[in-house]
Amino acid sequence: MKKSVFYHAGCPVCKSAEHDIIDVVGASGVEVVHLGEDRSRIAEAESAGVKSVPALVVPNGNVLHINFGASLEDVKG
Amino acid sequence: MKKSVFYHAGCPVCKSAEHDIIDVVGASGVEVVHLGEDRSRIAEAESAGVKSVPALVVPNGNVLHINFGASLEDVKG
Repeated sequence: MKKSVFYHAGCPVCKSAEHDIIDVVGASGVEVVHLGEDRSRIAEAESAGVKSVPALVVPNGNVLHINFGASLEDVKG
Repeated sequence: MKKSVFYHAGCPVCKSAEHDIIDVVGASGVEVVHLGEDRSRIAEAESAGVKSVPALVVPNGNVLHINFGASLEDVKG
């Protein structure tokens, strides 16, 4: 199965959502990307349609923005 | 495993998120509650901490607000 990708930026809201998503989806179904540490993937997240983190991009390409940690603009800045 | 509960109100954002959540979590792991049709459960959603729909309440009790379809106040109104 194609994995979902969970983008976050290390914020408290992000870490909490990361644990919850891994609990319900299973660690093997999700790739976790920390955009603060892996800045080369910010453009990829942006082109996937991610507007804020934490966000889960599901295998069909839809973006689920979860709660609200930070806007992608803040992560880029 | 305790199920997650996905609360929605039939809005387009809700239906799309419902399909995505069921795709990644699996139908057997999620109870889907349509608050527009099952208004008796609005108080339950509210006391679980749901502020807007669609929202997923995960087994540990945390609430993941997903994208934004409607505020719970609008669903109640």
